Amino acid sequence: MNSIPVIAIHGGAGTIAAVAPGSASAQPYRDALHAIASAAQSLLLRGGSALDAVTLAVEMLEDCPLFNAGHGAVFTHAETHELDAAVMNGADLRAGAVAGVSHIRRPVRAARAVMLDGAHVLLSGAGAEAFAREQGLEMVDPSYFSTEARRQQLAHARSADRVALDHDGAPLVEGSKFGTVGAVALDMHGHLAAATSTGGMTNKRVGRIGDSPLIGAGTYADDRSAAISCTGSGEMFMRAVAAYDICARMRYAGASLQEAADTMVHETLPAIGGRGGLIAVDRLGNVCLPFNTEGMYRAHACGAQAPHTAIHR
Amino acid sequence: MNSIPVIAIHGGAGTIAAVAPGSASAQPYRDALHAIASAAQSLLLRGGSALDAVTLAVEMLEDCPLFNAGHGAVFTHAETHELDAAVMNGADLRAGAVAGVSHIRRPVRAARAVMLDGAHVLLSGAGAEAFAREQGLEMVDPSYFSTEARRQQLAHARSADRVALDHDGAPLVEGSKFGTVGAVALDMHGHLAAATSTGGMTNKRVGRIGDSPLIGAGTYADDRSAAISCTGSGEMFMRAVAAYDICARMRYAGASLQEAADTMVHETLPAIGGRGGLIAVDRLGNVCLPFNTEGMYRAHACGAQAPHTAIHR
Repeated sequence: MNSIPVIAIHGGAGTIAAVAPGSASAQPYRDALHAIASAAQSLLLRGGSALDAVTLAVEMLEDCPLFNAGHGAVFTHAETHELDAAVMNGADLRAGAVAGVSHIRRPVRAARAVMLDGAHVLLSGAGAEAFAREQGLEMVDPSYFSTEARRQQLAHARSADRVALDHDGAPLVEGSKFGTVGAVALDMHGHLAAATSTGGMTNKRVGRIGDSPLIGAGTYADDRSAAISCTGSGEMFMRAVAAYDICARMRYAGASLQEAADTMVHETLPAIGGRGGLIAVDRLGNVCLPFNTEGMYRAHACGAQAPHTAIHR
Repeated sequence: MNSIPVIAIHGGAGTIAAVAPGSASAQPYRDALHAIASAAQSLLLRGGSALDAVTLAVEMLEDCPLFNAGHGAVFTHAETHELDAAVMNGADLRAGAVAGVSHIRRPVRAARAVMLDGAHVLLSGAGAEAFAREQGLEMVDPSYFSTEARRQQLAHARSADRVALDHDGAPLVEGSKFGTVGAVALDMHGHLAAATSTGGMTNKRVGRIGDSPLIGAGTYADDRSAAISCTGSGEMFMRAVAAYDICARMRYAGASLQEAADTMVHETLPAIGGRGGLIAVDRLGNVCLPFNTEGMYRAHACGAQAPHTAIHR
């Protein structure tokens, strides 16, 4: 019991044009972020583990129809859902992930089961779903993930013949739902963990795997440095190995969390056209939530302080 | 034209008990490695790019039945083939990869096509195969990849109820075929590239994706540091973000290629139970080929010197 616990969560980054700063339409997002951060914070304050806190937060984000993960996930070009998720435990560098699943209600639970099983780190498609069934996880019909707002978003992206970022270029009607989700935490015992879950990019090619389920790209946690969860144009985060680069810059160059995270988001990623953001917490409890887009749905809480939520800068 | 070109290739690491040092059974492996390294070397000496050299070398390794990639790939638990490949160009950090494909004759060509297309970095399964067809790549029936030696290897692994590394625990009869494959190169123009291709682990769970197609884990190239291709127990390479960690240690800690690669192979990976090796070349033309297993099929050539091949220490 030597660390003040910290939780940070995100619900995706992008232009977020539908949710004007201070507008009433922002309130449901803020309420959801606040409730989820509070639940994870309570778990941590009771002495719960960082791993349990990030799993709980991401499960709640998956269940929430406001965000692009689990229920309310975006559509692929073929009008299907392909969900990805990952989790990593900073104490022992164990990690688990699933990619391209469409029948697992809460993909982050499947990622965690892969990690605890220990034989593999990343399972995809039907093999991942068979594993989830064996583990007794809740399975659903793919229609569970569908919402009308996402269908409109696909129609718009298709007509423009392009893939859409969490928030980019979509028909940002009131009530539209966007966002990869993620959580990072430091627990009282000094351990870090990170988790990420997503429906990917609207109109993405079938079979595309983004950065979210890739250990080191969209998700990483190491007690010696930091826990990171990313959101944005996944391909650039993969090429930059974004999450791990922050940990490496801290360990090898002696950078602070803020310096390392800002360099990634404001220099490294823009240099290759990468847009998005990330949430990060280090072993000392420092938190940063940088993004190079108009906004990022986010919340964080340190110790017993009330969670702070934000969408725009 | 300011660099002396360098090519290094590997055909997997493991116990390699079937091929005793100096035995006649080692000769086909040495001959194949020599021929492939020579072909890539010639390409580089004519002024060809590092990207073309690693693609050529890995294509030839995929076509060669001696190695676990393309023709001669290992079987999954379900007696199917699931092939993975990746390529990365150090000049601009472009990358492409495919995972879980079973109808593309040369997966590395599909990885390269994903990279050149540019929309995504990693495509998996049926989506990756549809993309390869659109690109006009050669498609084959999955039986093309099967060999009798691999079927025996699966039967043995199944009876022992475990997954087998490239070379571990398999019935190492004379003529058995093992090994993930990879190549790294520095061209005359000072550019680096890396490519990796694999059939994965014998008896692996269907849907398992290893480190080979993951940018930063099994494959990475950055002109500012080095080009890396890994082979071994993929899950540990993923958790350590092995390929990218070497580049990061060079850039951020000022480590030499040798120091960074040795630390990964002899300290970081063993600490989490990771076994295998890697090949690496840096922008100055330094080469290293460390492994923590009994052997690693490997060859390298600097400038116009005859390629050097080796299997054991």
